[in-house]
Amino acid sequence: MRIRDPDKHALQLETILEAAKICFARSGFHWTSTEAICSEAGVSSGKLFHYFPNKKAIILAVVHQQTSQTATYIGELLQRADLSAALLEFLDVVLHLAADGQERRLILEIAAEATRDDDVGALNAAADTLLAKGLTALLNGAAERGQVKLVVPLEHAVRFLMIVIDGIFNRVSIDAGFDPAGERDSLRTIIRNILCISGETPDA
Amino acid sequence: MRIRDPDKHALQLETILEAAKICFARSGFHWTSTEAICSEAGVSSGKLFHYFPNKKAIILAVVHQQTSQTATYIGELLQRADLSAALLEFLDVVLHLAADGQERRLILEIAAEATRDDDVGALNAAADTLLAKGLTALLNGAAERGQVKLVVPLEHAVRFLMIVIDGIFNRVSIDAGFDPAGERDSLRTIIRNILCISGETPDA
Repeated sequence: MRIRDPDKHALQLETILEAAKICFARSGFHWTSTEAICSEAGVSSGKLFHYFPNKKAIILAVVHQQTSQTATYIGELLQRADLSAALLEFLDVVLHLAADGQERRLILEIAAEATRDDDVGALNAAADTLLAKGLTALLNGAAERGQVKLVVPLEHAVRFLMIVIDGIFNRVSIDAGFDPAGERDSLRTIIRNILCISGETPDA
Repeated sequence: MRIRDPDKHALQLETILEAAKICFARSGFHWTSTEAICSEAGVSSGKLFHYFPNKKAIILAVVHQQTSQTATYIGELLQRADLSAALLEFLDVVLHLAADGQERRLILEIAAEATRDDDVGALNAAADTLLAKGLTALLNGAAERGQVKLVVPLEHAVRFLMIVIDGIFNRVSIDAGFDPAGERDSLRTIIRNILCISGETPDA
């Protein structure tokens, strides 16, 4: 009986998923072949098919991994003492992802595939709900601690943040001159203003 | 020599474009045939090809018409005495368009086609620039008249509004439960808050 090495197993899975993300971001889901992923990962097709029965299984695993990373990150942010600072840090990560060509193309590719494939759509909708719940917990916690002051009901404030996050990814894909990092200071000022985050008055 | 009736000409063009918009919103650009547009418009294919050599010419005319309508509307808003109210009215129109299934699908279809076709992309980029310039004129005018107070530099405030507008259209396409009309009051409060629009303090 062959003993399976769990560390090696996880490492190979990770290698294949990282290669798949590079290929998907470069060529899109539909124009990426499993051969291209094998070549990028430096694994045989036999090895790839040992982990994933087909390309769609790889796409679903990539979306699942992205969602799981978001959940872990929001979970970490919720442990912070200053939840308003945690929220601003989350927006920094959004700007950082939007500025990263590969990450941005992958996220937009997932969004497009979600409209075409029901299974990817369902996973993406679950990721969207998870993000909304995470932002709700962050904002609610910050409000309870007096770190933010909500000028609109909590669920509307969350939806506004979701609008802003979506809009940032849209802008970079529409406007070649849009530089996410260049918007950071203004975005922080505006969000601080909306949430009346202590340390800066709305007039600052 | 046949005398062309300019009113009849404009009316037929308008009929074909309206029919094309219905078809494009229903089936997407690629899945709409010129036959389907003829059928929807109640015109012969000879008549349609008299005005448009091919489907792409119709697509470009639709995008051009949308852009021209936006330019006219922003031009009207710029004539108003209260430019901050005009800006809030513009956001109402955005929410209204986002809530209108046909308009929304058409706008998203144009955005998707813009990534696939360079000519549609160029027209769409021009529309984007026109919108940014219109918002800049509105915000700048409102600031000069003391109707808004900008907490960030003008160009960043405009980019933030563009982020919000994009994000609204994205949200309705991602989240089936997102109701643009239901966000109106909160969105107005947030935008008033950001722009320190007189009549409401940031804390209101």
